[in-house]
Amino acid sequence: MNQAMKTIEGWYSLHDFRNIDWPKWKAATEAQREQALTEFKALLSKWELVEENKQGSHTVYTVAGQKADLMFMILRPTMKEIIAVKTEFNKTLFSDYTKPAYSYVSVIEKSSYSQMATNPFEDPAIRAKLYPSIPKTEYICFYPMSKLRGEKTNWFMLPMEERKRLMFEHIDTGKPYSEQVKRIVTGSVGLDDYEWGVSLFCDDALQFKKLIYETRFDEVSAVYGIFGSFYIGNLLTQDQINQFFQK
Amino acid sequence: MNQAMKTIEGWYSLHDFRNIDWPKWKAATEAQREQALTEFKALLSKWELVEENKQGSHTVYTVAGQKADLMFMILRPTMKEIIAVKTEFNKTLFSDYTKPAYSYVSVIEKSSYSQMATNPFEDPAIRAKLYPSIPKTEYICFYPMSKLRGEKTNWFMLPMEERKRLMFEHIDTGKPYSEQVKRIVTGSVGLDDYEWGVSLFCDDALQFKKLIYETRFDEVSAVYGIFGSFYIGNLLTQDQINQFFQK
Amino acid sequence: MNQAMKTIEGWYSLHDFRNIDWPKWKAATEAQREQALTEFKALLSKWELVEENKQGSHTVYTVAGQKADLMFMILRPTMKEIIAVKTEFNKTLFSDYTKPAYSYVSVIEKSSYSQMATNPFEDPAIRAKLYPSIPKTEYICFYPMSKLRGEKTNWFMLPMEERKRLMFEHIDTGKPYSEQVKRIVTGSVGLDDYEWGVSLFCDDALQFKKLIYETRFDEVSAVYGIFGSFYIGNLLTQDQINQFFQK
Amino acid sequence: MNQAMKTIEGWYSLHDFRNIDWPKWKAATEAQREQALTEFKALLSKWELVEENKQGSHTVYTVAGQKADLMFMILRPTMKEIIAVKTEFNKTLFSDYTKPAYSYVSVIEKSSYSQMATNPFEDPAIRAKLYPSIPKTEYICFYPMSKLRGEKTNWFMLPMEERKRLMFEHIDTGKPYSEQVKRIVTGSVGLDDYEWGVSLFCDDALQFKKLIYETRFDEVSAVYGIFGSFYIGNLLTQDQINQFFQK
Amino acid sequence: MNQAMKTIEGWYSLHDFRNIDWPKWKAATEAQREQALTEFKALLSKWELVEENKQGSHTVYTVAGQKADLMFMILRPTMKEIIAVKTEFNKTLFSDYTKPAYSYVSVIEKSSYSQMATNPFEDPAIRAKLYPSIPKTEYICFYPMSKLRGEKTNWFMLPMEERKRLMFEHIDTGKPYSEQVKRIVTGSVGLDDYEWGVSLFCDDALQFKKLIYETRFDEVSAVYGIFGSFYIGNLLTQDQINQFFQK
Repeated sequence: MNQAMKTIEGWYSLHDFRNIDWPKWKAATEAQREQALTEFKALLSKWELVEENKQGSHTVYTVAGQKADLMFMILRPTMKEIIAVKTEFNKTLFSDYTKPAYSYVSVIEKSSYSQMATNPFEDPAIRAKLYPSIPKTEYICFYPMSKLRGEKTNWFMLPMEERKRLMFEHIDTGKPYSEQVKRIVTGSVGLDDYEWGVSLFCDDALQFKKLIYETRFDEVSAVYGIFGSFYIGNLLTQDQINQFFQK
Repeated sequence: MNQAMKTIEGWYSLHDFRNIDWPKWKAATEAQREQALTEFKALLSKWELVEENKQGSHTVYTVAGQKADLMFMILRPTMKEIIAVKTEFNKTLFSDYTKPAYSYVSVIEKSSYSQMATNPFEDPAIRAKLYPSIPKTEYICFYPMSKLRGEKTNWFMLPMEERKRLMFEHIDTGKPYSEQVKRIVTGSVGLDDYEWGVSLFCDDALQFKKLIYETRFDEVSAVYGIFGSFYIGNLLTQDQINQFFQK
Repeated sequence: MNQAMKTIEGWYSLHDFRNIDWPKWKAATEAQREQALTEFKALLSKWELVEENKQGSHTVYTVAGQKADLMFMILRPTMKEIIAVKTEFNKTLFSDYTKPAYSYVSVIEKSSYSQMATNPFEDPAIRAKLYPSIPKTEYICFYPMSKLRGEKTNWFMLPMEERKRLMFEHIDTGKPYSEQVKRIVTGSVGLDDYEWGVSLFCDDALQFKKLIYETRFDEVSAVYGIFGSFYIGNLLTQDQINQFFQK
Repeated sequence: MNQAMKTIEGWYSLHDFRNIDWPKWKAATEAQREQALTEFKALLSKWELVEENKQGSHTVYTVAGQKADLMFMILRPTMKEIIAVKTEFNKTLFSDYTKPAYSYVSVIEKSSYSQMATNPFEDPAIRAKLYPSIPKTEYICFYPMSKLRGEKTNWFMLPMEERKRLMFEHIDTGKPYSEQVKRIVTGSVGLDDYEWGVSLFCDDALQFKKLIYETRFDEVSAVYGIFGSFYIGNLLTQDQINQFFQK
Repeated sequence: MNQAMKTIEGWYSLHDFRNIDWPKWKAATEAQREQALTEFKALLSKWELVEENKQGSHTVYTVAGQKADLMFMILRPTMKEIIAVKTEFNKTLFSDYTKPAYSYVSVIEKSSYSQMATNPFEDPAIRAKLYPSIPKTEYICFYPMSKLRGEKTNWFMLPMEERKRLMFEHIDTGKPYSEQVKRIVTGSVGLDDYEWGVSLFCDDALQFKKLIYETRFDEVSAVYGIFGSFYIGNLLTQDQINQFFQK
């Protein structure tokens, strides 16, 4: 039996992508649209309170291309709440003007490739990573990924030491970007269809491309990385909502 | 000819995933919604009787993410009944407010990697596994899976002894979780598109991730495991239905 | 050039899967539903005549899970008729309450791995296989399949003798089931997306799983078998139609 | 750099598959259906003139199974016209009763595996192949295909001489069928998602299966052939249109 | 760690494919259609101004086959604007008569396989490539692509020198076409699902096929190229819009 890495987990995470039904939205009456936006903003305000109470975090984005129009990233302490926020959203009038596009369910994960305290849950630096406030940068880049289990090349059959070496090389490549590009890694083995979700945050979308392109030449990415779809979002603040949905 | 493992089978199983058509539900009249919920609860009560009579078992869940909103797991003695419960559900008014999302058809399977009595169907412990009451834990994790038949690496060409060794290693990895995480393994070769279905039950969703992540480093998972989608559900008791569907 | 096996062909075959639009069906008036069922039963009666005249055969099933609600298996002497029965069905009012789910087009095939008469078309035993009446067992299991053409392992590059050996091994594994499980093999190279269709017939659905699981350890299945979706149907006799469609 | 084969190209080709919206068609008024068929037949008559003027060719088929109901094969001198015929069709009232199912865009290609004249475009035999009238046989079989570019086995890395040898073997296998089965090969590298389209024409649909099954044992098919979906059509002459669309 | 090539980036790019809802369009009133076209042309005029101000570029095409009816290629300085043009389009009445078909998000990329100035952003020739006016040729050919990361053959594990050699061979093959076929290469690692987008421009659609077919025999394409769908568009000038949308 090969040795699994030790991981510790923080908040659960939902990445929820929606398309806007623009023809329906434009065909709605002024009153309907106003009611829909009021319910949407009320929900966001409620979520703001959760964030203020350190019981979760969330952000909203407009999304590039046709993969989706809106993206929500939502962190909560329990899976029950992750399911509940979806239902809560679906009950708003606003949701009737959207259509599901994609979602990803995972949990914030910190792995022991890096050093870990005896009781990491008491370490404030680690707590800040397990229970973070999502960075409010201009852009997000989200993608799910797995590690290859091929017939010749199999991440999960590599000795721990080799996996560690490859991960550290990867971390080194990313270092020049670490100031500019923040990231939240979530684990999804057993929770969703890839093994991890990666959320990158930056004020310059080009850095996503540069960072991911450069790291693709790392052995761990080049040989073992299996990547799902890439989603780019632009932060939609509560102030910008009215303008965005203006007919 | 390579030797197949001996298996014995119990009840047939249907995992049935549905989305709720929330806009239609919210647009329905109070009377329509009440009628729909009444029919839904009547069906569940009828199924309760089946369970009380030891002629099957069932559970209902709300599901994480956009893969589905509801999940039903239903056990019945015959394939005919498995087909009939679907039709029965489709005839309710309630079903008109849902849309099919995914389903899985299989049969509870106990394999002879473990010791088996001369007539296992008379062994009460085995009967309890073949004709179980589905655990009513807070969470379920369901995923279908197959074993690799690659050009170099082929589960079905391994000698029986080697398959046995790999399965026992796998069972060992899972042992620390066996108290907390219950499971029902169903076979679906010839019945659905993967070879097995795995249903895990636990009050803490995180244990699904930890168990499946850890076992992924077992040779049998790392090298031979082909995994379908993972679905996480939160138990929806009959008491919670009204609140869940409240507009 | 490698040697192809000799095959002889009988009737063309259509496996046609439909979903029932239950909300539409339930919303229809009593008169509409009656008219729809009348047209459906008239079509089935017409097909009965074809069967009595030995010009084809057909069966109707309700299907397990969400892959489909109804399945038709229809045999006819010409491809023109195979296309015509689809159009004929689509013109009924009944079809307006169904939606296409999947279909498979093939032709009954008997291959020369087994011994064949000089003029097999004059051999009554072979004629019975080429122009069969579809068994009216309780259950059907249908799946399309191909043979692997991998980079190392390629069925179509094996010498004829080796293919023959592997097929006979496979036939041996199936022998204990041959009384209980009947089968119709159809060829679909050039006609549909897999190379063969397999239709198994049995009064006990569990035998499908047991047979297919056991044969999966045969080299020909383990190494060379590529399997499409598996569909399980429960025979729907003309007598049961009214009850099945009762609101 | 490996040597590409020389090819010469003739007319562009569109294979356009449509489903008929039968419920909508049956719900239309007599006048609407008549108007729709009138517009459809007017379009076909216009295309007939194009064919008479040797500026293209076209055929219409009803299609087996649920992949499509109608198939159009249309040849035109320019890509602009290939795009225009689609738009022209979409503007007819008839098209409102159909839904897109699949399409394939390619160009008639003759490759230099066979001998070629100094100026092949002046050779009447070659001109007849580059600018053909589509055979009006009872059946068509269409499928797109590519050649394998695997990690070990790669058509495009084979020396020209080896490719030539494999193609000639393939042509030999097909020779016994050449009288009965006509074919039009179209190239689609850079134009659509496979590398070639193959259109076979015969009065007996069984010959498609026999020819393609037999050639699948040729090394070029067995090892290098990647096949898309197979579509079988039955010629629909202008005379048969009224009957086919009769409610 | 393997060495990534240096790249510099210019404008962001959106390839946006839409289907026209012809039945809805034809059912609209004359006034609705006129209003829709007016809004569409107003948007295009606004985009013209952007192009005149050297703040971007755009083209519109009608597309071959059923993959899409319209294609927009739009260049803008920031990702924010790339997202905004989509929203802007979706707010027009015109967009209500279209349906999303596919999109691709990338950024113009110039890589250092070729020589680069010390400050390439000051080199007018390079600036012309990073911030181009999209060629207004009769045809476009767009396809996304990646480089293979297989178990034996892995572009990203090749030494820089070998990648350079292979790319130069590829560039050589394309040279005879360089006058006739213009191209814009965009990078999409981290932005969309393939690694690059290729947009070719030519007045003769056949040259796309000839160029791509010939280069497919280059080692870099034959062995390492993974190609997405190919889309062929025919330039739709503002003058041709009225005629194209004429009922």
